[in-house]
Amino acid sequence: MADYKWPNNARAAVSLTFDVDGEAGWLGISDDYAERLTSLSDGRYGIARGLRRILEVLEEFDLKATFYVPGRTAELHPAVVAALVDSGHEVAHHGYLHRPAHLLDYDGQRNEIERGLVALETCIGRRPAGYRAPFWDVTPATFALLKELAFRYDSSFMGDDRPYVETYADLSICELPVHWFLDDWPHFSWSNERGGQFADRYAVIGAWLDELDSARAEGRSVTYTMHPEVTGRADHLPVLRKLIEGIKQRGDLWIATHEMVASHITTLSGGNEQ
Amino acid sequence: MADYKWPNNARAAVSLTFDVDGEAGWLGISDDYAERLTSLSDGRYGIARGLRRILEVLEEFDLKATFYVPGRTAELHPAVVAALVDSGHEVAHHGYLHRPAHLLDYDGQRNEIERGLVALETCIGRRPAGYRAPFWDVTPATFALLKELAFRYDSSFMGDDRPYVETYADLSICELPVHWFLDDWPHFSWSNERGGQFADRYAVIGAWLDELDSARAEGRSVTYTMHPEVTGRADHLPVLRKLIEGIKQRGDLWIATHEMVASHITTLSGGNEQ
Amino acid sequence: MADYKWPNNARAAVSLTFDVDGEAGWLGISDDYAERLTSLSDGRYGIARGLRRILEVLEEFDLKATFYVPGRTAELHPAVVAALVDSGHEVAHHGYLHRPAHLLDYDGQRNEIERGLVALETCIGRRPAGYRAPFWDVTPATFALLKELAFRYDSSFMGDDRPYVETYADLSICELPVHWFLDDWPHFSWSNERGGQFADRYAVIGAWLDELDSARAEGRSVTYTMHPEVTGRADHLPVLRKLIEGIKQRGDLWIATHEMVASHITTLSGGNEQ
Amino acid sequence: MADYKWPNNARAAVSLTFDVDGEAGWLGISDDYAERLTSLSDGRYGIARGLRRILEVLEEFDLKATFYVPGRTAELHPAVVAALVDSGHEVAHHGYLHRPAHLLDYDGQRNEIERGLVALETCIGRRPAGYRAPFWDVTPATFALLKELAFRYDSSFMGDDRPYVETYADLSICELPVHWFLDDWPHFSWSNERGGQFADRYAVIGAWLDELDSARAEGRSVTYTMHPEVTGRADHLPVLRKLIEGIKQRGDLWIATHEMVASHITTLSGGNEQ
Repeated sequence: MADYKWPNNARAAVSLTFDVDGEAGWLGISDDYAERLTSLSDGRYGIARGLRRILEVLEEFDLKATFYVPGRTAELHPAVVAALVDSGHEVAHHGYLHRPAHLLDYDGQRNEIERGLVALETCIGRRPAGYRAPFWDVTPATFALLKELAFRYDSSFMGDDRPYVETYADLSICELPVHWFLDDWPHFSWSNERGGQFADRYAVIGAWLDELDSARAEGRSVTYTMHPEVTGRADHLPVLRKLIEGIKQRGDLWIATHEMVASHITTLSGGNEQ
Repeated sequence: MADYKWPNNARAAVSLTFDVDGEAGWLGISDDYAERLTSLSDGRYGIARGLRRILEVLEEFDLKATFYVPGRTAELHPAVVAALVDSGHEVAHHGYLHRPAHLLDYDGQRNEIERGLVALETCIGRRPAGYRAPFWDVTPATFALLKELAFRYDSSFMGDDRPYVETYADLSICELPVHWFLDDWPHFSWSNERGGQFADRYAVIGAWLDELDSARAEGRSVTYTMHPEVTGRADHLPVLRKLIEGIKQRGDLWIATHEMVASHITTLSGGNEQ
Repeated sequence: MADYKWPNNARAAVSLTFDVDGEAGWLGISDDYAERLTSLSDGRYGIARGLRRILEVLEEFDLKATFYVPGRTAELHPAVVAALVDSGHEVAHHGYLHRPAHLLDYDGQRNEIERGLVALETCIGRRPAGYRAPFWDVTPATFALLKELAFRYDSSFMGDDRPYVETYADLSICELPVHWFLDDWPHFSWSNERGGQFADRYAVIGAWLDELDSARAEGRSVTYTMHPEVTGRADHLPVLRKLIEGIKQRGDLWIATHEMVASHITTLSGGNEQ
Repeated sequence: MADYKWPNNARAAVSLTFDVDGEAGWLGISDDYAERLTSLSDGRYGIARGLRRILEVLEEFDLKATFYVPGRTAELHPAVVAALVDSGHEVAHHGYLHRPAHLLDYDGQRNEIERGLVALETCIGRRPAGYRAPFWDVTPATFALLKELAFRYDSSFMGDDRPYVETYADLSICELPVHWFLDDWPHFSWSNERGGQFADRYAVIGAWLDELDSARAEGRSVTYTMHPEVTGRADHLPVLRKLIEGIKQRGDLWIATHEMVASHITTLSGGNEQ
């Protein structure tokens, strides 16, 4: 995968991805959260308010993004999730109840992923092409399930900053890698339950754009991960705008959904990247 | 609640709210704190020093604010709490011993809220109109109690950034929402017991004012939450002043207590927002 | 204590205080640290290197400071501690093994404080006038011991930002208050064992000088708390220098040890502040 | 060791050191990480991508550095580790599975260090001269092993900021000291498992260069510690470049590996620094 030959002679590819955790972001931590109504409302905010703001900005700049959606979010907010597809965005798989893989055995994980598939297919009328593990937590059982259930790409690993083939034992999958630094969560989230920090917004965006320039220099891709309840808050939206303006100003980037990037990569490598 | 028609053609409403936790802020964590004298003194500082400074700034700018007061604070500092009302500020309910709801059953929560009501009514001579849950922690039992005890509004949820009707099962209440980012605690508090961080003061205020401008653009309201032992410290007061100056300079805001906002909203929706 | 009439018509008093925890800063957490050699070496650094640098800066600006010293530090580094007094600085009591009070009963605390007294008196040839609790952790037993052992002042509470009389039951003591924000530890310490943060150095000093200006406006005193293993590191010394330059430039401050401030206060109130 | 007489009349010595923890950085925490595939991939990133970028920058500036390598990293990535030596860099000992010493008894530690020695010798064809404890965690058993196994220097302690002789009981070793502040990990790492923070990159580098200027003023040495999975990320590389430019611009520094510094020190003190 050394030379990606990005479409339109773009120097690099960039994907904006959003994890639409909603209530599932809390319910996946423990069943106790079913009664922690304020925590649930914070997750709901992402759907009700954050997502709407993000979609307006994306529309303003005519960008298509990838939304990783837990099955439970699709069940609770089917119209919102369906509208994402109607607007030309990609909806991909993000578990059912946003449960961390390492606390589940194979059957537990299979149940999570299959329920997520059913919920998403019911909602968007097609099978999602890609998978992103809740908490980016992957075990050998997860990897086996990605192959059994024929996902075309994954976006949960950190083994490279280029698209690559991730492997485990004799399994392999097209990987669109992520990293905590390129995720809004470690920088800008806080709760009484989980702690956290609120970093300086513009210092972070400066570094995110440095990553982008490195991707251009190296001809690779970069994935930013954001959450509607974080980046979709009013105080944070100027930061998303600044990121997108930085992307646009460079003028030589292919801004693409993960499915588009994965398809491009797979085509380059002869239709079978594994 | 789409068009709030704020008084005086204001573009948005803004409420300054202060949680006067005092000693209860520690006692609510565990009984052990009854003997942790320095922790208690830190809470007391809020009453003895922080509150006084905040009140001076509010008077200087002729602003009325909402003070959420645990019943225990009213018992320990009755003159201070009564003086808040005498100065035209609103005093609202913030539990009795600042205990987190999810560790209490229905009876435990009822006891907390009823003791808080008695303490506040004894102190200020009227029943508080609104409620804010300690730690913004609400369970179904809390919600039931809000209705049984006929609170006119709540300020503990994060499901929107506009005033809205929060619901649970067949219950509903007028909600003036909050968020951790718009609270001084996650940014500027630290203790050996609880950890925390001290963020850059002016970076935070810059983001708080971005939130304000979003509220103006959207015609909604915004609630800032502060603590006398944090924002009332001498090193932090310039920040409060900067926030208020930012509010005043914009010139098109309705600066109102939560009770005023809730009444306005309720009137708009025909006297019954539920 | 409303009008402090500071010497030389100074507008406010400022005290630089240093907690010379050394190895005891770790040993007081748990006995396990007796074998955690790197942690111990970090504490030792404060003595071997940090303290020396701080003393040079103090001498350069001709300032006298208060050093709170655990008894164990005096036993392990008697010449260093004795030299503090020889240079005109104050040495005060900071426990024996820097143990948190709330984990000790009355006898355990008595043992700590008495061993500390013996160690300090042996080292500096006089009884220290003041006490600062390890971790600023004080229980009723501590307070009783402060009176039984006739300390003339304490510096562990946060109930005010002016010198004040701290009380518990029928006990009282002259208090020179502290706060986490005015302590270098929460801003600039980190270890694998305890976590922590490294904040922006100059943002913190800006806020510390705001506190100083507030003290000048209010005619009160301010106490900064630092640690040789934090502020005495080479990367941090420019910050200490900046703080002292800020103090000197204002030109209207009484820079005094805690013993000097406590004596002044006590004299003002007729020789018995209680 | 008061006067180090650095080669070429340099005012101070500076060492860039990199802990190549790789997968062992996670496996050493607990066996559970053998199945946490994303965590492992983050460690692997350091090898696959971070190290390569760092080596390019070092080559660009013609610098030699010291790489502390756990034995397990050498087993998993023998070609990468061997190439470090081929490029003229130093490879030193960093445990086998990056296990913290205080959780292991003497035999457990001996096993770790001996397995690390075998792995490194197999890979690089010589015995490493120096040792750095995983997590900089050293117990008396570790110290005994450093002498039994005849390491020529250690880099795990914080008892000074000059090269010094660290001792325990009747043991001693040439120490090239470290500190958390001069390590990229506390400033710039975060994971769901361990938490952490992402600080402002340039504020940190400013402080790192202050440390360097102090070393020049004092004629001592300074050691920076970095991790390929942190400093080798694209967003962070400009910071490494800025650090190196700061070093180069000063023009009066001896940039040397730890082995070079230790040899120089030992020669100065007559071939036996103990």
